Amino acid sequence: MEKLLEQYKETRKKLAALNYAFFLIGWDSETEAPKGCFEHRSEMIGVLSEEEFKTSTSPEYIKVVNELFAHSDQLDDLMQREIKKVKKDLDKQLKVPMNEYVEFSMLLAKSQNVWAEAKVTNDFSKFAPYLEKIIVFQKKMMKYYETPEVKGFDVILDNFEEGATEAFYDNFFDTLKRDLVPFVKQVTSRNLPAEHKLDNLLFDKTRQKEFSKYLMDVLAFDQDRGLIKESEHPFTSGAGTTEVRVTTHYYEDNLFSNIFSVIHELGHATYEQQVNPILDDTTLGGGATMAMHESQSRFFENILGRSYAFWQAHYPKLQEIFKEELKNVTLDDFYQLVNVSKRTLIRTEADELTYPLHIMVRYDIEKALFENKLKVEDLPKAWSKLMKDYLDVEVPSDKEGVLQDIHWAGGMFGYFPTYALGSAIGAQIYSVMQKELDVDAILLQGNTKPINDWLKEHIHQYGGSKTPNEMLLMLMNEKFNPQYYITYLKNKYSKIYNIPLN
Amino acid sequence: MEKLLEQYKETRKKLAALNYAFFLIGWDSETEAPKGCFEHRSEMIGVLSEEEFKTSTSPEYIKVVNELFAHSDQLDDLMQREIKKVKKDLDKQLKVPMNEYVEFSMLLAKSQNVWAEAKVTNDFSKFAPYLEKIIVFQKKMMKYYETPEVKGFDVILDNFEEGATEAFYDNFFDTLKRDLVPFVKQVTSRNLPAEHKLDNLLFDKTRQKEFSKYLMDVLAFDQDRGLIKESEHPFTSGAGTTEVRVTTHYYEDNLFSNIFSVIHELGHATYEQQVNPILDDTTLGGGATMAMHESQSRFFENILGRSYAFWQAHYPKLQEIFKEELKNVTLDDFYQLVNVSKRTLIRTEADELTYPLHIMVRYDIEKALFENKLKVEDLPKAWSKLMKDYLDVEVPSDKEGVLQDIHWAGGMFGYFPTYALGSAIGAQIYSVMQKELDVDAILLQGNTKPINDWLKEHIHQYGGSKTPNEMLLMLMNEKFNPQYYITYLKNKYSKIYNIPLN
Repeated sequence: MEKLLEQYKETRKKLAALNYAFFLIGWDSETEAPKGCFEHRSEMIGVLSEEEFKTSTSPEYIKVVNELFAHSDQLDDLMQREIKKVKKDLDKQLKVPMNEYVEFSMLLAKSQNVWAEAKVTNDFSKFAPYLEKIIVFQKKMMKYYETPEVKGFDVILDNFEEGATEAFYDNFFDTLKRDLVPFVKQVTSRNLPAEHKLDNLLFDKTRQKEFSKYLMDVLAFDQDRGLIKESEHPFTSGAGTTEVRVTTHYYEDNLFSNIFSVIHELGHATYEQQVNPILDDTTLGGGATMAMHESQSRFFENILGRSYAFWQAHYPKLQEIFKEELKNVTLDDFYQLVNVSKRTLIRTEADELTYPLHIMVRYDIEKALFENKLKVEDLPKAWSKLMKDYLDVEVPSDKEGVLQDIHWAGGMFGYFPTYALGSAIGAQIYSVMQKELDVDAILLQGNTKPINDWLKEHIHQYGGSKTPNEMLLMLMNEKFNPQYYITYLKNKYSKIYNIPLN
Repeated sequence: MEKLLEQYKETRKKLAALNYAFFLIGWDSETEAPKGCFEHRSEMIGVLSEEEFKTSTSPEYIKVVNELFAHSDQLDDLMQREIKKVKKDLDKQLKVPMNEYVEFSMLLAKSQNVWAEAKVTNDFSKFAPYLEKIIVFQKKMMKYYETPEVKGFDVILDNFEEGATEAFYDNFFDTLKRDLVPFVKQVTSRNLPAEHKLDNLLFDKTRQKEFSKYLMDVLAFDQDRGLIKESEHPFTSGAGTTEVRVTTHYYEDNLFSNIFSVIHELGHATYEQQVNPILDDTTLGGGATMAMHESQSRFFENILGRSYAFWQAHYPKLQEIFKEELKNVTLDDFYQLVNVSKRTLIRTEADELTYPLHIMVRYDIEKALFENKLKVEDLPKAWSKLMKDYLDVEVPSDKEGVLQDIHWAGGMFGYFPTYALGSAIGAQIYSVMQKELDVDAILLQGNTKPINDWLKEHIHQYGGSKTPNEMLLMLMNEKFNPQYYITYLKNKYSKIYNIPLN
């Protein structure tokens, strides 16, 4: 056993080092690499990927993992979990014939280019045949990945959120349909007095940067183990707890884009930084699941970052930085402005309240596709109908409809629902936090450190060593329950929009 | 043969990919990595280095290299050169017993810390025992590396400049001693009218950055394949011709530091970018030798960058950027300011004219050490004597004397002479360039592109596929000859300092 573990750890270390190289190469690609380097770079990545593939599928390594798995009763709890996870991923990898895997990767690379072109030219018919092929492949993968426990569409969902099933998501989204959709219609039929107060204003980039720095300070982000930089699309990236990096993007005509990107990404990054460092060398570092990660970023962005107390504390600083631009915008105006809710077309620009409805559209479509109830050619029609049902909007074009997201072109089915689930988990965690902490008082004080500490204790420290439900059970003796989310949203928006709750 | 070559190329590719990772990790470490990441990072680097070591010393690879070398008559010219080089490096690597190599690496790591402390506290006795050990090790290595052709101190010199011998450098430095040292004494005994005109001025960093950007443009640096960033000490780093990066450092109280760092590093970078791309995948990419690389950076920095014509073209821009600061500094003043020559103590701050004399001090000491004519304990005394002989200055402390450079603490004996040799090669190349191009007219025009093109044609394109002497012979039918350097320096400085030449 000792010797097996040693062999396992040696390979794990080599894979970690290769992933470390990928992390930095990727970071560089997104933030500063000169455009002329990419052809050579992709070759180099190819060589390193091949090395990674060879290492992670070598007969010796497979043997070691299988033997450890067979005798996992002799392993400590953490190692048991790790081996279980590694074995599951390895089995999946080995189930797909190499040539099919390569073919699929090539299809995805090509499809993403075709999608981009189809989006620009608003021509779904261009993309449709590729999407068709992707789904055929995905269905094959689904078959390969099936186990006695996980079958059909559940396989797709499990890919991005371990343990999440169709029955689970159905319950979640049905609850939203029943309890939230009518409320959203009420809210979005109203207007807020302040809602046009920033129209046509420009916000200097250098001063926006100053506010980003300020946000890192007040959100207690450990800058000895992280940094902020610019990229086309904001993201968080890192390697263990010792370096976690975030990016943002500045638009001079959109003050909020940077502010909420920074707060959102710092939610992800704080989670990563606060994992117990003993997990750094294991495969259980980082966040528990996609949804759990998203729960933290959206908790930061929406529950903290769009709260009244947060802006009570920090709006004066923002006003100081943008003296001229914000001179006629009061704190109350500003609070309204960051919480305007509108029935709109684009998911990534949706507000906190309507956001989950955009996800429901995608979930329904994915489910129908994989259960053979919807053909690719009928996607635009289905999209329009669902947008009408949930958000009561007409979709004027495919580029503002079914073509807006890159995910499906990348074969990422089952990804979307984790976004909404994350928001809901965040609200559930918040319900407990409010009982234990005076959150508003902490926010008013100006620094979120006590909140970060609380999250570290109850969520972050565990990294991937516990499932979301395990953590929720420890925290509140209750599994995931969508009602907390609905209650949170209704309470917040009924006040902002002055809608009496029944 | 076909199969051997294929095997060779596969390993070469893997080593290239690992080096690519090292390049980006190193770049990140120097330019932006958060300080908390370095412990974990060095572990990851350790794993990748081990992988590199295993790959480059695997029995299969050694066999392939040896067989290709044995049958190199069947290889094309380029591959012959490559295999010869690879075989030489591999033989060197294999000659040192692994445990000694590791021990030496650890000694060097430790020594550099000790050196830093000794320098700060001005205490040579702290560093001396480490330096002693390093030299003992180096002498052992020297023995290991000896071949029938290369013996004794030549081994040390060959490490950093292939083919350079003691006899060669002796001739070079003896010429400088005879023909340059008296002239330097004449020059440095005089003062220039403008020499204090920038004293006590501060230069805003943002505006310095603007001028760096301007320099990249006028030096025709291809920014699609490169970029500029900040680091503690300026350097150039890259991977083949498709990405070559430089750094600089801004000091508000020193306008010249950034300007000449940028020009110097762009000299290195332009060389790298202009190598024939067919060499990118080979081990013959990059510059030919250390001295040849330095010849290009110093050609840019000194011969172009400190010329009158260059500032005739670009001083107006600098004056526009620093309107207030430079309002009383004329072009003629500025030309004097960038060419002030002084007898000073610190090599890295030395001017173009006195610089090679600082190198001579180090060369004499290295030679004496390896020929057992000087003991480590007597180093400070020897240093003071040589500084007096060549530069006529008194050395007031070891930190401004023998402790000033990190090189010896890193085991880098034989490195210094390449700096001076580089300057001299640059001047020799310049002598031909002036016959073929109207260099001043090109500089006056404002963009160095035609000069870069000329360098590409005659030097850069060859990368490491030709030696410096081969290139010089092709260019001018003459090998390296230090007289061009002396003539260049005397012509330039006699004019600036108004000293009649005999």
